[in-house]
This record gives sequence, structure tokens and C-alpha cells, in this order.
Amino acid sequence: MLRFLTAGESHGQALVAILEGMPAGVPISSDRIDAELRRRQGGYGRGGRMQIERDTAEILSGVRHGLSMGSPIALLIKNKDCSIDRLPRVAHPRPGHADLTGALKYDHRDIRNVLERASARETTARTAVGALCKCLLEQCRIDVFSHTAAIGDVVASAAWKSGARFRQIVEQSPVRCADPKAGHRMMAAIDTAKAAGDTLGGIFEVVASGVPAGIGSYVHGDRRLDARLTHGIVSIQAVKAVEVGAGIAAATRAGSHAMDEIFYAKGRGFYRKSNHSGGVEGGMSTGEPIVVRGYLKPISTLMRPLRSVNIDTKKPVKATVERSDVCTVPAAGVIGEAMVAYVIASAMLEKFGGDSLREIQRNVAGYLAQIKAF
Amino acid sequence: MLRFLTAGESHGQALVAILEGMPAGVPISSDRIDAELRRRQGGYGRGGRMQIERDTAEILSGVRHGLSMGSPIALLIKNKDCSIDRLPRVAHPRPGHADLTGALKYDHRDIRNVLERASARETTARTAVGALCKCLLEQCRIDVFSHTAAIGDVVASAAWKSGARFRQIVEQSPVRCADPKAGHRMMAAIDTAKAAGDTLGGIFEVVASGVPAGIGSYVHGDRRLDARLTHGIVSIQAVKAVEVGAGIAAATRAGSHAMDEIFYAKGRGFYRKSNHSGGVEGGMSTGEPIVVRGYLKPISTLMRPLRSVNIDTKKPVKATVERSDVCTVPAAGVIGEAMVAYVIASAMLEKFGGDSLREIQRNVAGYLAQIKAF
Amino acid sequence: MLRFLTAGESHGQALVAILEGMPAGVPISSDRIDAELRRRQGGYGRGGRMQIERDTAEILSGVRHGLSMGSPIALLIKNKDCSIDRLPRVAHPRPGHADLTGALKYDHRDIRNVLERASARETTARTAVGALCKCLLEQCRIDVFSHTAAIGDVVASAAWKSGARFRQIVEQSPVRCADPKAGHRMMAAIDTAKAAGDTLGGIFEVVASGVPAGIGSYVHGDRRLDARLTHGIVSIQAVKAVEVGAGIAAATRAGSHAMDEIFYAKGRGFYRKSNHSGGVEGGMSTGEPIVVRGYLKPISTLMRPLRSVNIDTKKPVKATVERSDVCTVPAAGVIGEAMVAYVIASAMLEKFGGDSLREIQRNVAGYLAQIKAF
Amino acid sequence: MLRFLTAGESHGQALVAILEGMPAGVPISSDRIDAELRRRQGGYGRGGRMQIERDTAEILSGVRHGLSMGSPIALLIKNKDCSIDRLPRVAHPRPGHADLTGALKYDHRDIRNVLERASARETTARTAVGALCKCLLEQCRIDVFSHTAAIGDVVASAAWKSGARFRQIVEQSPVRCADPKAGHRMMAAIDTAKAAGDTLGGIFEVVASGVPAGIGSYVHGDRRLDARLTHGIVSIQAVKAVEVGAGIAAATRAGSHAMDEIFYAKGRGFYRKSNHSGGVEGGMSTGEPIVVRGYLKPISTLMRPLRSVNIDTKKPVKATVERSDVCTVPAAGVIGEAMVAYVIASAMLEKFGGDSLREIQRNVAGYLAQIKAF
Repeated sequence: MLRFLTAGESHGQALVAILEGMPAGVPISSDRIDAELRRRQGGYGRGGRMQIERDTAEILSGVRHGLSMGSPIALLIKNKDCSIDRLPRVAHPRPGHADLTGALKYDHRDIRNVLERASARETTARTAVGALCKCLLEQCRIDVFSHTAAIGDVVASAAWKSGARFRQIVEQSPVRCADPKAGHRMMAAIDTAKAAGDTLGGIFEVVASGVPAGIGSYVHGDRRLDARLTHGIVSIQAVKAVEVGAGIAAATRAGSHAMDEIFYAKGRGFYRKSNHSGGVEGGMSTGEPIVVRGYLKPISTLMRPLRSVNIDTKKPVKATVERSDVCTVPAAGVIGEAMVAYVIASAMLEKFGGDSLREIQRNVAGYLAQIKAF
Repeated sequence: MLRFLTAGESHGQALVAILEGMPAGVPISSDRIDAELRRRQGGYGRGGRMQIERDTAEILSGVRHGLSMGSPIALLIKNKDCSIDRLPRVAHPRPGHADLTGALKYDHRDIRNVLERASARETTARTAVGALCKCLLEQCRIDVFSHTAAIGDVVASAAWKSGARFRQIVEQSPVRCADPKAGHRMMAAIDTAKAAGDTLGGIFEVVASGVPAGIGSYVHGDRRLDARLTHGIVSIQAVKAVEVGAGIAAATRAGSHAMDEIFYAKGRGFYRKSNHSGGVEGGMSTGEPIVVRGYLKPISTLMRPLRSVNIDTKKPVKATVERSDVCTVPAAGVIGEAMVAYVIASAMLEKFGGDSLREIQRNVAGYLAQIKAF
Repeated sequence: MLRFLTAGESHGQALVAILEGMPAGVPISSDRIDAELRRRQGGYGRGGRMQIERDTAEILSGVRHGLSMGSPIALLIKNKDCSIDRLPRVAHPRPGHADLTGALKYDHRDIRNVLERASARETTARTAVGALCKCLLEQCRIDVFSHTAAIGDVVASAAWKSGARFRQIVEQSPVRCADPKAGHRMMAAIDTAKAAGDTLGGIFEVVASGVPAGIGSYVHGDRRLDARLTHGIVSIQAVKAVEVGAGIAAATRAGSHAMDEIFYAKGRGFYRKSNHSGGVEGGMSTGEPIVVRGYLKPISTLMRPLRSVNIDTKKPVKATVERSDVCTVPAAGVIGEAMVAYVIASAMLEKFGGDSLREIQRNVAGYLAQIKAF
Repeated sequence: MLRFLTAGESHGQALVAILEGMPAGVPISSDRIDAELRRRQGGYGRGGRMQIERDTAEILSGVRHGLSMGSPIALLIKNKDCSIDRLPRVAHPRPGHADLTGALKYDHRDIRNVLERASARETTARTAVGALCKCLLEQCRIDVFSHTAAIGDVVASAAWKSGARFRQIVEQSPVRCADPKAGHRMMAAIDTAKAAGDTLGGIFEVVASGVPAGIGSYVHGDRRLDARLTHGIVSIQAVKAVEVGAGIAAATRAGSHAMDEIFYAKGRGFYRKSNHSGGVEGGMSTGEPIVVRGYLKPISTLMRPLRSVNIDTKKPVKATVERSDVCTVPAAGVIGEAMVAYVIASAMLEKFGGDSLREIQRNVAGYLAQIKAF
């Protein structure tokens, strides 16, 4: 059983995460985590803060001599700008943010108390947790990767492919898009939005490959892998929709064209020629790549502030502008990887148990042999 | 804290549910539950079994003299057809179902052991649980209702409206569609699909109105109300995508047109003129109607069976045809209501506590007065 | 991950339990469950109701052809006396029961709404759940058994022994005591208490043998096996204290006499010559028998009613006498077995994972070989 | 809903805790936490390390301008001695510790990887979490305090009393004993044990006063307050037994002398003249002081090492001596307070909900008025 908590305000001292349940013997380094934090900070369309802060994670516990110990892993990511105590009070809630409702709920007269935690900066900690999960998944030959499927109304035409080449193209694209032409149009759209003081949303796609058939379950609704994956994806700030496989398109398609027929070949076992299901049938992984797409609304902080109300005077005002990203879709894909990695690592440990890497690998191997001989 | 478990196979003796955490003093009757079960069983495009079985729930515990007692509520829904022990072995897994992966995962040589539980019949129990949650929500003036937004490629143009008139139109439509013209085209599409031995998916929309601002939270990812709602919706069989508010459209829209500006009026307090957010900002209810849409793939059991493999011989076969619904979107909306009702009731109890209806109502009223005076 | 819910009132229609997370392929029969229910109903010192009601469990789901299916198992135990709706209102709370506080908490003016659920009759459902867990544990060669260590001030001198002989002596003793002389004095003490309209508590001991070393964990407080075991034992009505191993005596003993030194022998591996720890060190099973003792206060319903207050008039009254057991220690041991079986089965599944019996057994065997070669 | 995770090794960089679910507006300071950490480090019979390290907690998040923000609170407690990477390998497991089983479970060839986390140093983080919970409880007029009831075979005769005088006596006693004569005998016993290279256990008692009637519940076993309290207490290293109220003595007492009769007085409402139940009946707080006692085995690290086995050579050895406390009962009481504070704060939030201090206080006040008028 894997569980984690994160803490930390945007301009507080630090972001902190504790991950509990990681088996022992998994190779883990702060470099590996920092690499993910860097990927999260990149992307065309980010504001100035990303340049200032190069996040790095300190591993405070749970890892010794480069290997996980089985004990909880605490991560500390210091904020370069930790001015929270000096920053001025905020009285103008920004539409599209937690500001107004957060102030009502927690009885805060200073909205800064809300926005400091509601900020997407918190996802830094989750990205770090996801990096730990990836360290485990890699040892089980599971890969989790993302790319940008759309920014605003520019849609990429390239589909996910396994292998280093696809990965390289995506990582070199400033918008993390595998389709270079679309990538250029995306950047142009960002430039246009920026000039207009506007923002853009889009779609990211996360693909987990190498997941064995049979994690998750149909036996109880809350154990369904697709439900858990969508929970993870929508828990990311600004994600307002999610689909698994051909989810949205499938709704308008006839049933005869929405299923993945089953085939068998000696040596290979059961397999499919299509993957409409996005690698999940009946709430379980099928063994095909798991494909999840998150739909991101444009970020809520515009340079052209929206109408709001001063919470003291109740007079109309323009909402406070807190920062200046234009588009965060490329970063959101990296955060999406982290959430998918966490959900899959959790489901792997539920199915295979295991307190040491050796034990998990043995249990996985035993199961793979079992289903091969099915 | 509200939690539930369901049990039961499609052709077993009964479906069973236990709901734990319901406060005492809430009016509950089996009639109220049966009414929801009937709504779930309706809908143009259902197969023969729906006609045979008119589900009714027995309340075995937790309710006395028409009021909840605070103790767990057990519900029993007997199956008319409980032939599970006599039904033949299944060796041909159906694509799009849990069949193949379920057999591999649980080491079942008889796929019937899988499909009996993976069947959407299980949602009967969840609908009953949702009915109990609605009994509580109604006492807090919260309403949860659904309608069909699309079937196949036929899209309804009518948007949700509060009030009895909208509800009446939907309930009288055989496809639960508020747009009569679209409703007729939906039925025609179902007829066409049926004639072709095919199936259709679609989109249902669930709206929860009357929810006070501030349930759910931004402080930790897993507490976000939208994440929890999407988990609930995707936990329904055949739902492969979900959006909150203008989720999918928002991804392609500029930020300046995707937010709900904030206004204030004496007496009314803070309010919005639009609801792009679907009633959820920063992972919390805003006080506006909560709007969630589920995207349903066509059901996987076609009359024209798909290609599969015999699990004994490993030879190609045509997949078994188990039943004959053509379209389940109208029913899925009712199940969606149940899941939304459960998630919202849970979040209400987390925020307001309360072991008796009187205590909850007092706590809610105190909070509403507090935020009115904010 | 194993979880369960129970429901049901003492004079309601039925007791119900759902156990979720049982792997597939485990041999399960209602006879096996009924045998445990019978053991719970026995014991010298029980009142008249035990004779009337011979509990039997119906398996409503999750088991087919004698094997678990992997899906939730629902159990139904009908009450012979289901007069809850006709039984008179109770206005006199009984000291030592949930009556008064339950009425305050849940805002019940009829205390019957409390006592019907707070009654130890609820443990029937838990005993049935424990029987299911035992079915799994037996396949892993784990045995859970209990005996009476004391009733009132009569203390048994016989310690737990493995093997059929010890079990037979206990099961044939009307007070489930392995020490025949003490057993007779216990019965005499019960007779004396009964004649005086009084009640007696005592101590039961549950022993789980065959548990492999290493379930539970030290890495986080809430994962400690002893904490989880004591939670389970104290969750039984009337248990007010619990110890693991020589827990209470150890507190007054010098450290040099409280530890179990470590030895090693080829073939056998690491072992101990003593078991002061009760089979749990550092929150983990050591491989030695796990020994937990529950301390039961005398049951709160005396034939000589205690002073109380009428909740309407607020005048002093004598508390209502609801039933007439004199001593329930023998039954409590059986219930204690159920809770221990549940906790250990849970911890086994967490460590070993596994969705089918074959998979668990393979994973356990792999681990046992690993630690043997350590 | 309150939840927390801790992390950190004994000689690692730091101990870390994250507490999630604390309402906003609660006064919190690091001084308040440090005061509890100091109390934990005191006590006659501690070894040298306690003198070196004066623990202090940094609040990294969740508190601003002295008030909780509603967001997760992260605490960092740096280790003065963070030599974990340089410390030598351990190959001799100590009886009574997690050493051997932990190495087997997590497949560690260096037992240091186990003992670093299994060490009671981890309770520093829990003490800090408990201090946060106390900050909330104090605002609800709930007090949690502990004292030493026994060390070795020396038993204190003073019972808990409310008020500053009792507290003062305990805090000034080097063994935290309210009975000065027994206190001196305890210190003498510690001296004797120390001279002999031995260790001593004992009994601590935690009392929570001011808890309103009705937290916890009888409706489901796992919600019982006594079960949750005992879980918390036994989750403390070296605690092997626990009782609520007169738990152990009650087992040998007749029922007519084990219950707390119920009285009523105008203005005061329902009350008791005795508290055999330890403030918990039917799994709920009765409104009387909650009394829980933890039984501590002597700590497992003796200066006279016990017999063990080298895990490489499998030859008999003397177990490694890691540190030199003789008796930790006084400290364990402080840790016990932390666990009790956490369990009660959790149960309070479940019953009363509330996201701000004002909301909780209003909900509690409403309930207290309700039960007063019952």
C-alpha cells in the first residue's frame, strides 16, 4: 500500500512530501527526482518565476547508499522565494481560482492564505513523489511518458509511439509535442495569447507501457483502475476533463468499432490489434499501453484581470494578477505522468505485494509465467 | 464519513449493499429506493431482462419507523433469475469486457466467474446506495438530477434547468432527453443500431444543485471535489471519459472566456453569471450547480459478435453474446446521479459532521449564516 | 486489501456482512461459517436466547461451486426474533452500555434505537467474516484458536499448545478452558454469580500459529501488527484491555528477562526458545505463535439493575434488564479469533498480494525460500 | 478527517511529519511544539543522547502569522547526529527489536537499515504531531495529560486529578510520578537496574478531560473510540498492553461493581459518580475523563547483551548494544499523550466537521446545548 502527503505554500519555506510504502532496495537518487522537476519547470509559455527557481529535492529519509530502505521517504524542496510572511494581504478573489470559496470555507480574511496553497506550485511535490514511483516502475519495466496533444485549438496529429526516438522528439520540443508542425503552431498560438494578455489550455496525453494485464479490478467500483487514474489526473489544478483511450470519441461511435478484438499467438499469448480501450477493460489493465488524456482549462490568471469583488467593501474590482504563465500544458503532462506513476505503482503493490524489490520482481515474474501458461 | 460496499453477481441470489455513516433521523423508505431502481431500469434501447425484473430493495437494517438509526443500512435486492450455479461455463472472452483480463487476474478457467460480477447489474446496488444518499441530501435542500446529452452522434441542445418542468420532460422522454426533437432522433438511431446488431454510447449529464459553497478542498490533491466526482463517474461500467463544467470545450478556449467572474449583491451575497467551472473551482463547490458529464462507450455486447479466442483451444472464435441492450445511456445517467449523490453526501458529512439530521442541519445553517456575513 | 462492513440490529430482520478483497479459488462453505457461529453461541453462562437461535449464514454472493470468486462475499444471518418494530420504547439507559451516550449522540428519544445495534449480537456477523478469513489462512497453513484464560478471579494454569489434543480439550470444556480443574471452578463461579443476579468478566487468549515472519511493519506506527491486533480485540464489546505476549507482566520485569534471544539451526533457520514477545517484535510477526489476550469486563446487563435516570422525567430509576447472560468470556474468545483472523489475513494480503489462491501460495512460498536462504 | 505521516531515521538528516486536515485559525507556534519535545526528552533514566540533542521543530508550512491555514502542516526536526551514511554495518540482530524480522522482511543485509527507522527516535515526530493536535483540543477545552503509574515493580498510589497542582507535581518529578514517595523508589529502582546493566518497563496513564459525550461510535467495530485509542497507544514502541479505565481489574470483578451508575442534576445534566469505564462506554466518550494506560516492556537494548546470531556466519554472538536508556516510561507517557490527542482530535473532527476554528467551536457549542436540553 502506497500513500503520500504533500505540504507547502507557494512562497513558504519549502515544499515537502512524504511517500510511505515504497519497498526496499529500489535505486533512488535526488538527481533522478531533479530531472523530473526540471521537466516540470520547462515548456514554452511559462512566466518569469520558472527561470528564477530551479527546483531541487533533498532526500531527508528512507534512502541510504542509493537504495530505498522500506521506510517513508521525505523530500524537501526549498523555495527560493519564501516571502510568505511579508507578502501583502489579498482582498480581491480571482475568478477560476480557489480564492473566493477557499476564503469562505476556511474563514480567511486574507485570500493569500488560500492562494499560497491552492497554487499549482504544489504539484512540484507531487512530481517528486511521481519520480520516486517511476524508480520502482522502471525496475518492473514499466514506462510512463507524456506528450502534448493540443494547445488551444491546435491539435497534434502524432500518436504515441514506444521507443527512444519519440521520446527525444517530445523532450526537444518546447511545447512537448511530437508533431513538429503542430508544435510550431502551438508556440505561435501562445505568442498571440500572450500579446493579448490571454491564456491557453489544451490536452496532454500520458501513456504507461509495460503494465502487466490485471492490475486494478472490476469487483468493486472504487478499485477500477480507470476511476483511479482519472481521479489522479483531475486532482491536478486546472484539469477539468479526462478520458481513457478513445473515451470521448467512443461515445459517438457504434459499438462494432469501439472494441478491441482478441487474438492469440504462440509465445506472445493473448493480444490486441487495436487499443480503443486505452489499455483498460473492466477496470483492469489489459497489458496494452494505458492511455489517459487530461483536458486543461486555460490558466485562470490573466494579464487582463477579470471582474471580481473586494471582500471588504463588496465593491466591484478587477481581480488581482498573481503571476504570468500563458500556457502550462507541457508542464501538466509531466505532472500527469507523476499521478499516473503513483496510481500504477499503488495498484502494482496491491496486486503483487512485496517489501523488497527482489520480492516484487519475483512475484511479478511468477504471475507473468502463470498467465502465459493460462 | 460515509462508506459503502456492494456485493452480488448478475445471476446470483441477490445484490447486497451496506452503507455505513448515515446520520440518524433521516426519512428513508424502500419506496424511495425502489423509485430510483425503476428509473435505472427504464430507457429506450434496453433488452428483455429489464422487463422481466422489476427490482425492489428490502431494507434489512439501519432504518426503524421510517427513520435512519445511525447504524449501517443493509439493502437486499433479490435476483429473479438466480441460475448462476446452473449456467454453462464460458470459454470465449468478449472484447470490451472484463472477461479475458479478469480470468487471467483471478485465475478463472470459467469466464462466467468474471462476467457475473463485472456486469453492470452491479450498479443496481449502487443506485440503491445513491437513493439513500439522496434522502439525506434532500433534507439539506440539495437536488441531484440527470439527463441525456447525446446518444451516438445525436446531441441534445437543451441545457439543464432547475425546476419541475425540466424534470418532467426528461422523465417522460424514453431516452431521458430534455430536447424532444433530439430525443426522437436518438430513438431512431437506437432502432437503426438494433437492426444492425450494433450498440450505441453517448453522454449523460448529472447536475447537483443547492450544494453550499466550500465542500471539497484544494489543500490536498485527493480531497478535490472534481477528482472525487470523476472517480465516481468513471467507476461506472463503460464510462471512459468525464468532464466537469465546460471541461472539454474549455481546453480549446482562451482564458478570458473560460472563467466565471465574481459579483456581489446584498441579500444574495457573492454570485456568478456564468458557470463554465461546472460549480467547482479549486476543488471546491462554488455554490453554483455542479455539472458533470459522463461519456459512455457503446456497450460491449453486440449481437454481431467480435473476434476472440477460445481460452482452452486458443483457436479463434466469435465472442459469446450474453445479453442484448442496444443503448444504456439513459440508465447510466441515473447511476451517475447515485455516484454524484454519494460523493456529495460524503463531502457534506466531512465538512459538517453530524450524527443526527438535526445536528447536520444546524451545522449547515450556522455555516451558511457565517458565509453570508463574510 | 481486505475490508468489510457489517450491518444489522439485534431484533431486526437479519445480520449482514460484506467482505471485499478475498482472493479467488479459496474453498468456502456455509457449513464452515456455521461451525464458527455455533462455537460463538456456546459457552456455560449464556442466557436463554442462545438456545432459541441457532445462527446459520447464507452466502449470497462471491462463492460459486464451493470456491471464492474474487468478488465481494455477502453473508446473511437471519434473526429468528425480528420484533424490532413491535418492541417497546426504552427510556431507562443501562450503565455500562452505549445506551445513554448513544441516545445523546444520535439524538434518539427511544434508546432501543441504540441498544439494538450496540448489542454484542453484532459480533455474529464479525464471527462469520472471521470464518471466511480463516478459510484463506488455512490454505496458508495458519491456524487461529482461542481458549479461556480466566473467568472472574479463577485463572487457568494451562498454556496454549499446538495440536489437536489441546484443541479438543478446549472445545469440550463448557467454558473453553484447557485446564479442567480451573474449568470446574469457573463454572462454579458462574453459578454463584447467577444466583446473585450478578455477572462475570474474564480473559481470553487467541493464538495464531504458522504466521510467517515479517507481516506488519515498524516503518509507520499505524502499520504495526500489534497495534492492529489490539484494535481488533478492543473493538469487541466489553473488552477493556488487551495484551500481546507477556505484555502486562513484562512491565514489571527486568529487561534481561523480557526478551527472546535469537538462535539459529541449519534447516530450521532463525528461532527462539521463548516467546515473551507474543510473536510480535518491532510491529512484525516473528514467526513464533502470535499470542493476544483480551480482558473482558463483566457484561453490563445485570439481573440486579443498577441506578439510572428516566430520560423523560429525569427521575432516578432502575436500569432496564434486556437479557440475561452471566458470562460471555468463552464466546468472546471465538469472536477474538475472528478479529485476529481478519487482521492477519489483511496483513498477509498486504505483504503477499495475490488475486488467486495459487498466486498467494506461490508468493508466500517464494518469500519463505528467500528468508530461509537469508 | 485528520491524517499524518512521519518520516526519518534515527541518525538521518531529520525527522519529518506532515499533518493534513487541521482546520484554519488555530493558534500554533513552534515554541508550543518544542515544549512537548522537551517533555519527551526528559525523564530519569535516559541515556546520554538526550542531553546532546535538544529537539526543536521548524514549521515549514500550513501556519502563517501564528495561525493554522487549513493546509497541511509540515514539521522538520533536524538530527544533530546525522551520521547514518558513515555508521558501520550491523550484522547482529538484537532480541526484542525489529532487527531480525525487519532484515528478513525488507531483505536487508545491513541491519542498520532497519534499526534506524524502528528506533523510538521516530516518536519525536509523533510527539510534534500530537502537539499540533493539542493546539486544536485546547481551543475546545480538552486537556490531555499523562503521569507515570509504575516503573518496574514500583506502583504509584496517586490517581489523576484535574487542575494545575497535580500537573505541577508530575512535571517536577524526574519520573513524572504524582506520588513523591513512589517516585523516589522508582528512581532507586532505575539506579539499581542501571548498575546491573539492566532495563525497566512500567505503566503510564494518559487522561483526556473535557471531551464531550458522544465521540467515537458503537455502530461499527472500527469506529469504537477505545479500539482507536488502544491502537494509538500500542503503536508506540515497546508498549505491549493497554487498558481503558479499570480494564484489567474489571476482568476479575463482579458486574455489580464494574459499572458507573447514571445520575442527573439540573444544570449539570447526566453524570456519573464513578469512572470504571475510563470515560468510554459503547465505544463512545461518556463525558467523563478518558483514562488509558500503556504497559511498557523494559527497553530491549541492555548493556548486558543478549544471545543472538551473526547473520553472515550464523554463529552465536552477543547482540549489539546501540544505546543506553535504562527506562523510558516517563517519556512514553508524553508520547502516549500525543497519540491520544491525535485520536481524539480525529474523532472530534469526524463528529463536528469544521474547516475553521470558529466553525468547529460553533458546531460543538450547538451540540452541547442540544444534549443539555435532551
